[in-house]
Amino acid sequence: MTEVFGHEQVVFCADRQSGLRAIIAIHNTALGPGLGGTRFYPYESEQAALADVLNLSRGMAYKNALAGLDLGGGKAVIIGDPATDKSEALLRAYGRFVESLNGRYFTACDVGTYSEDMDIVARESRFVTGRTIANGGAGDSSILTSFGVFQGMRASAQHIHGRSTLHGLRVGVEGVGKVGHRLVDLLIEDGASVVVCDVSERAVDQVRQRHPQVEVVASLAELVAEEIDVFAPCALGGSLDDTTVATLRARIVCGAANNQLAHPGVEKQLEERGILYAPDYVVNSGGVIQVADEIRGFNMERARAKAGQIYDTTLKIFAIAAEEGVPPAVAADRLAERRMSEVGRLKGIWLGH
Amino acid sequence: MTEVFGHEQVVFCADRQSGLRAIIAIHNTALGPGLGGTRFYPYESEQAALADVLNLSRGMAYKNALAGLDLGGGKAVIIGDPATDKSEALLRAYGRFVESLNGRYFTACDVGTYSEDMDIVARESRFVTGRTIANGGAGDSSILTSFGVFQGMRASAQHIHGRSTLHGLRVGVEGVGKVGHRLVDLLIEDGASVVVCDVSERAVDQVRQRHPQVEVVASLAELVAEEIDVFAPCALGGSLDDTTVATLRARIVCGAANNQLAHPGVEKQLEERGILYAPDYVVNSGGVIQVADEIRGFNMERARAKAGQIYDTTLKIFAIAAEEGVPPAVAADRLAERRMSEVGRLKGIWLGH
Repeated sequence: MTEVFGHEQVVFCADRQSGLRAIIAIHNTALGPGLGGTRFYPYESEQAALADVLNLSRGMAYKNALAGLDLGGGKAVIIGDPATDKSEALLRAYGRFVESLNGRYFTACDVGTYSEDMDIVARESRFVTGRTIANGGAGDSSILTSFGVFQGMRASAQHIHGRSTLHGLRVGVEGVGKVGHRLVDLLIEDGASVVVCDVSERAVDQVRQRHPQVEVVASLAELVAEEIDVFAPCALGGSLDDTTVATLRARIVCGAANNQLAHPGVEKQLEERGILYAPDYVVNSGGVIQVADEIRGFNMERARAKAGQIYDTTLKIFAIAAEEGVPPAVAADRLAERRMSEVGRLKGIWLGH
Repeated sequence: MTEVFGHEQVVFCADRQSGLRAIIAIHNTALGPGLGGTRFYPYESEQAALADVLNLSRGMAYKNALAGLDLGGGKAVIIGDPATDKSEALLRAYGRFVESLNGRYFTACDVGTYSEDMDIVARESRFVTGRTIANGGAGDSSILTSFGVFQGMRASAQHIHGRSTLHGLRVGVEGVGKVGHRLVDLLIEDGASVVVCDVSERAVDQVRQRHPQVEVVASLAELVAEEIDVFAPCALGGSLDDTTVATLRARIVCGAANNQLAHPGVEKQLEERGILYAPDYVVNSGGVIQVADEIRGFNMERARAKAGQIYDTTLKIFAIAAEEGVPPAVAADRLAERRMSEVGRLKGIWLGH
């Protein structure tokens, strides 16, 4: 239980009648209210739910900081099976607890929750994003997620090859689902050649219909063994493990998946093999940038411009990594912590509100 | 950890720089915002702190309900040694978390915190009672605590002897500290004879100076063996254990101490011995009534009138106990739960705010 006090605020919420058991975790609010999605998941234990929400909210703090948002790190979990336990009463009870924090936490969709759910939560709280488009929502956040990854990839190409384009490079994309297939669109448009793999044949077929020139391999193992310049993990986390890193022929890793590093230390292995790693939470922050824009009243052009800055942030991280002699993943953490500290302390300049 | 979801909201709060580690527990808000003090105590573990705050906040829900207040049950603990860990920064960090709940929790003094501390907490939050008198505080809450116990005792005498006075009865008071010595004043004024015990010779001497007719015995064991009509535990909790109950010669137990029953089942033993037990949390609620009045702007006459109703509530509990064939402690819990349910549900009648 000790780790709970490593976060600024962790809120356990219960409503017996509706069956709600939720935990809202706010890692810190140095830059503003914590923002992060609500995961609805049948955790095996409350300890498991707590561990997940603590970890995820910490991740959001770093992601939001480097996305240049005026938002801290927050996340919530609802313990239960969304297929059977989700109800209007439960979602609205949850909404009242989100409201009870009076804007210190903004919620959004995550695993097991959808925009329609957020509309229900929003009937009890003002602090809800990820709404349906009809209710001012930002729509499918995979649009700017893929756009942001593409910007990170351009920055990586700039760092390695001295030109900010994927033109003429061969990119291996693991996972062509919601985000991955949009990334393929952007890569093809930019003049890259693309090789993909996905456990879903249907997803692969759809990509091939749009872009017949895309090559397909059967597995992640085959993909990383290909002669590729860039590896883009866009499926589940943990793709970069000891085996993958030992085999990988790409000089750049840049993708949309969360938690790409299977364990601490992989970032060093990548560096030792001369592979440039664009930190996952930096390049995949286009989604939260898109959703967070709802707070001000969603504007796609403003959100896209903000996501475009992922290019500059990624370059900056590579520069810090080189200057300070650390892997980019460490440089990213440092840059996030500096922003939280340097910008956060400005609230110390009194303005009367 | 399971028990945490038995409460409406449990909030872990941390501030690394000031060393704050606090837990605010809100048992339920059926009747209004949770109100209860902040205990500053060097708990051996966070689990111990959590267990304490869950238990105490549940107790406040029942106490506030039967005190007739429009308040739910809340309580907070700060983990640390008040002698060494208390600082302006820590108290104000705590105040910001009290404020973050936006009025769902009102704090007050408890073990390890004083009105001067509440004034500091209040520099960050509007939801603070137990203030110093200069800042609108209710002052020494032992005034209405002892007054309330006296009302409970009058009700007990009414129930047993058919007259609402202690005149002519012999009352044994365990503990003549802040509350006990004021109770002795009220008893003497009402025409009772009083016998006391206290571990502090100084406290006993002070009572004897004011009332030379008060008798003194050396220990709790001696006190309960005395020929007394009423036993008033006003020291630490747990006075009513198997030994005390087996020896006790009084027909009435009514005192200011918290958690007078040493273990579950003692309430039945008392009943089997024909001893009327006025539930502790009912008769000692004068203190919270006094402090809670600060929310509306403290008015001693209004608070005293409210505490006077402890007489009626105690009688009502005895009547329910007789009707439903349960000990008064059980009747009190039932009455509290009924009020939370019956009055709480009235919020379902929509008024537009």
